[in-house]
Amino acid sequence: MFITFEGIDGSGKTTQINKLSERLTNLGYNVLTLREPGGNVISEKIRETLLSAGNDITPCAELLLFVASRAQLVEKVIRPALLQGKLVICDRYIDSSVAYQGYGRGIPIEDILICNKIATRNLVPKITFFLDLPPIIASVRAINRSAENLDRIEQEGEIFFDKARQGYIQISKNEPERFIMLNGSENPDLIHKNIWNYISKII
Amino acid sequence: MFITFEGIDGSGKTTQINKLSERLTNLGYNVLTLREPGGNVISEKIRETLLSAGNDITPCAELLLFVASRAQLVEKVIRPALLQGKLVICDRYIDSSVAYQGYGRGIPIEDILICNKIATRNLVPKITFFLDLPPIIASVRAINRSAENLDRIEQEGEIFFDKARQGYIQISKNEPERFIMLNGSENPDLIHKNIWNYISKII
Repeated sequence: MFITFEGIDGSGKTTQINKLSERLTNLGYNVLTLREPGGNVISEKIRETLLSAGNDITPCAELLLFVASRAQLVEKVIRPALLQGKLVICDRYIDSSVAYQGYGRGIPIEDILICNKIATRNLVPKITFFLDLPPIIASVRAINRSAENLDRIEQEGEIFFDKARQGYIQISKNEPERFIMLNGSENPDLIHKNIWNYISKII
Repeated sequence: MFITFEGIDGSGKTTQINKLSERLTNLGYNVLTLREPGGNVISEKIRETLLSAGNDITPCAELLLFVASRAQLVEKVIRPALLQGKLVICDRYIDSSVAYQGYGRGIPIEDILICNKIATRNLVPKITFFLDLPPIIASVRAINRSAENLDRIEQEGEIFFDKARQGYIQISKNEPERFIMLNGSENPDLIHKNIWNYISKII
């Protein structure tokens, strides 16, 4: 089973992934948690190019670098893990491309989906949890966490993150079965309970 | 005007690009020569990831990294130069993806063309010169040039390069107007004369 988490930086993805992973592990599941971009040597190199502050990358090159990193992660890590019966939880996946490079940067959604389909050979998560939070609140959290070391994308302004957020909200309307929108400003334990309600029905 | 050169490593592209560039410059043209992958800061970083010997990259991630590098080069360098009236000569372009990742690695040609169309917003060279040479001869040249420092792709065996060569030959059949196949084993001055016959008709 393949589960992904989405949301702008500071929306609480890491906290929820840790809670879910711990609970599933305690129940005896073999859980692998990953983050994008990254999760293997090549993807971490791509991550470095993508996120280094000061790098001047065009929107289209940015999209293709994220997708290249994803292609490598899917083939080298995610697919083999799923074939071994592991439960894979990934922090960000295709929906991030749609929200950030599509709604955020203005690349046609159709182009984004085509590239991702080629890169992942159509591997789609069983369920995705989107932690929704107004960018103004999320950015305070992200800043507190990173101190002055915000990466290239975290340095974008509130308008960019608001566009990405609207993208996520649109996805939740288009795919209500897979893409579950949760209120990221609620108590983390309450959010986890809500997530567990969905997970317990499908495992 | 946008001109590209194609062929397996050791086929004599650099020699011919230098001859053509020098002649055009002497005639007063403003010539910009570039190489792929590379030609700007970000694309050179991608080049390093792509070509470092020992890097274990999946065919699809390899394709997408080359295409990301191309997207950056087209938007940051090639299009602005063409808009300034420069004559751009590039060592490798989309046809390399088709020959190497398509015919060489087995990725569907259709997928390769779609990604490249998105990356380049359909920027196609006016003319492309393919220097054809049997891989066994080209590889001796490439090895002599690089000593033991063959990059990740140069380290591929003869079978791979022969598939790429067959890909190039197929492109020359599909697009005889744009994609000019030349015998790379001829005398370099004779090859240049041949290239100049084409160029002088279109400038």
